[in-house]
Amino acid sequence: MPLTTATSASFDMARYMEDVGAAARSSSRLLACATTAQKNTCLRSLGEALLRYKNEIIAANEMDCAGAQASGYDSGLLDRLQLSPQRIEALGAGILEMIELPDPVGVIEHLAPQPSGIRVGRMRVPLGVIAMIYEARPGVTIDAAALCIKSGNALILRGGSEAIHTNRALAGYIQTSLEEAALPRQSVQLVATTDRAAVGHLLAMKRWVDVIIPRGGKTLIQRVDEEAQVPVIRHFDGICHVYVEASADTNSAVDVCVNAKTQRLSTCNTAETLLVDQAIAAHFLPEVARRLQQAGVSLRGCPQTRAILPNIDAATEEDWRTEYLAAILSVRVVKDLDEAIAHIAEYGSGHTDTICSSDYHTIERFVREVDSSSVMVNASTRFADGFEYGLGAEIGISTNRLHVRGPVGLEGLTCQKYVVYGDGHIRQ
Amino acid sequence: MPLTTATSASFDMARYMEDVGAAARSSSRLLACATTAQKNTCLRSLGEALLRYKNEIIAANEMDCAGAQASGYDSGLLDRLQLSPQRIEALGAGILEMIELPDPVGVIEHLAPQPSGIRVGRMRVPLGVIAMIYEARPGVTIDAAALCIKSGNALILRGGSEAIHTNRALAGYIQTSLEEAALPRQSVQLVATTDRAAVGHLLAMKRWVDVIIPRGGKTLIQRVDEEAQVPVIRHFDGICHVYVEASADTNSAVDVCVNAKTQRLSTCNTAETLLVDQAIAAHFLPEVARRLQQAGVSLRGCPQTRAILPNIDAATEEDWRTEYLAAILSVRVVKDLDEAIAHIAEYGSGHTDTICSSDYHTIERFVREVDSSSVMVNASTRFADGFEYGLGAEIGISTNRLHVRGPVGLEGLTCQKYVVYGDGHIRQ
Repeated sequence: MPLTTATSASFDMARYMEDVGAAARSSSRLLACATTAQKNTCLRSLGEALLRYKNEIIAANEMDCAGAQASGYDSGLLDRLQLSPQRIEALGAGILEMIELPDPVGVIEHLAPQPSGIRVGRMRVPLGVIAMIYEARPGVTIDAAALCIKSGNALILRGGSEAIHTNRALAGYIQTSLEEAALPRQSVQLVATTDRAAVGHLLAMKRWVDVIIPRGGKTLIQRVDEEAQVPVIRHFDGICHVYVEASADTNSAVDVCVNAKTQRLSTCNTAETLLVDQAIAAHFLPEVARRLQQAGVSLRGCPQTRAILPNIDAATEEDWRTEYLAAILSVRVVKDLDEAIAHIAEYGSGHTDTICSSDYHTIERFVREVDSSSVMVNASTRFADGFEYGLGAEIGISTNRLHVRGPVGLEGLTCQKYVVYGDGHIRQ
Repeated sequence: MPLTTATSASFDMARYMEDVGAAARSSSRLLACATTAQKNTCLRSLGEALLRYKNEIIAANEMDCAGAQASGYDSGLLDRLQLSPQRIEALGAGILEMIELPDPVGVIEHLAPQPSGIRVGRMRVPLGVIAMIYEARPGVTIDAAALCIKSGNALILRGGSEAIHTNRALAGYIQTSLEEAALPRQSVQLVATTDRAAVGHLLAMKRWVDVIIPRGGKTLIQRVDEEAQVPVIRHFDGICHVYVEASADTNSAVDVCVNAKTQRLSTCNTAETLLVDQAIAAHFLPEVARRLQQAGVSLRGCPQTRAILPNIDAATEEDWRTEYLAAILSVRVVKDLDEAIAHIAEYGSGHTDTICSSDYHTIERFVREVDSSSVMVNASTRFADGFEYGLGAEIGISTNRLHVRGPVGLEGLTCQKYVVYGDGHIRQ
């Protein structure tokens, strides 16, 4: 990729992006037919390169961090931008784990004879070309490349300008690894320009891009979702609920609430609202409030909650719709299961919701009727994660309904085509 | 549905469509939790109503046909618009067959314990609200309603103005059947106005509509695909290929070619291009040409083809990209498998392509490398169909890559959510 052109005065963005797209498409055709051994060879090379060139990666990353600091970015961004030696080792270890995962491509399911005599099945194949639009975190460069290579998809990476030196270094190692496995180096391309107009081109390249996956702040995701002409796999809010039903085991329910809220504050699967059955509210709320407040969480309650916990702030209508990503939890007392399900349907984001209960019928209804990408029973919402679900890795969590819902692993990056075997069969 | 408002002077289209959307959403929540027995009861009522009210349906249909004739519509449209008693009986029989199909909703797959101790699986659930935008064919009203009811999806129907009387009659019987099964009658709604602006509203109703399925001419599908902010499951061209490879059994390959082209001329899975290996062209082409020409098919050939069949027209570059839907077949001689695969990748529409061959390695490569929604071996492209594939019914054929590819049956109208069962599990 001629990086220099990206800064020259005569740079033709539209032409450049078309070239990137066309190269991705032709690489994707070859990558789709690569053997598992080839793809694993590439991953092994990449994992080794990360360890071998750790110092070079850190040097590039330090340039980005210094630049970001000079530009006055906040500490959160700096934190996401920085790659420590440990983080690089973890990325390398993640790649080696991916080698162990089964290759989804080429698997044929449900191959069965039909009345006409033809045999019909479905073969799993790569989606084609994936474009990843993301901010700050350079680890995404490696994770996305490894997932796409293993699933046979070509990848166009469009990282944030703040991480450009790190991403260029990483993309170089990725392309070398592809070549070492006799795969096209343009199977993974980093958009060489930091001009924001490149994103607009990506969003419109229906001919070259099969799906766009944005990762980053809400503004980025909304822009992508509104402007994209290409299908988008994306994740909006994580307004996750814990509903403690009347029959719940109190101790266990308190543990689940505390873990769901505090195990990590800033993740999308962190609980933001606690719903408690009125039958147990007087008993349960003081106990859970004590534990949450010990952990530094502020509560905001509905009137019934504040009648039991008079010292907490009132929750407004806005609170029920808020993803705090902070040490705040809104609390509401509900009459029963119906009111809990209705609250989640009205205010939830379809991400992850859990019930604490011991009652079979209540649990069955909650699991069936709550319409979220993950519905849980007696477990912390924090489990909504590709590794915890056994996917081995995830490229993100989807709150789409179509194609893939919840954590997106290798299978989410594939689709199925029908395969039909006949013996000269014709239709009557 | 107050049909009268749709024609009154003060009719507020935006408000009306919002009401339709909101009613669909709230109905979808109830329909998603309906039992299989309830849904089958509804289908049985509907199947019986079609037979009982056959004369009323035909009377409504005659009004539409008379109107279409007076408006000077072409005979193709009139043909698609007309419902004969036999056609109504066939629609009724199709509904009764759908009762026998397994209910996809609620099925949990892959439920398995993970290292943390939680058990994780995926439950199949309805997509939510489906909007169907279609032309002429009133049979789509019944097929789409039956598929959506069985799969637990609410449905908004937007048929063409030419079929409005037939569709109103059919929608009435559908809503009565829903009520007879204690399901919300607004689970299936027909947009009451024939104003084309209604389509624009549907395409933008992200809040109320989960997926749009257009069926009809290319202009309609392109408009929907370009304007929709809601995800679209759609089907563009069917430029299907038959590739006759050197090792093919000649007699069987001729039969497949003739069937793929002539069994029905105007369907999307009809073959439009024949590719023949140069090694067998001199022998194979005269034989297949004779049979095709007997069946009334005109051939258009590449220079090599015309060297063997001098009396046929020349195929232009445009021919390779054309879905004739008529008794025309373009014919090209190719050097080998690679050239056949490259031709299909360049000119095909990713719909259905078949190889005639006896060679294991060639077949394996064709199946793996051709990137179409159906890839076939020694079988006519005409088999690309929901009934032939054992789906029981289809709402259309998707040439999308995401979500569903090929014939779309009940499963294509569902998605999966994760279900997680714990016993007070918290994340460490």
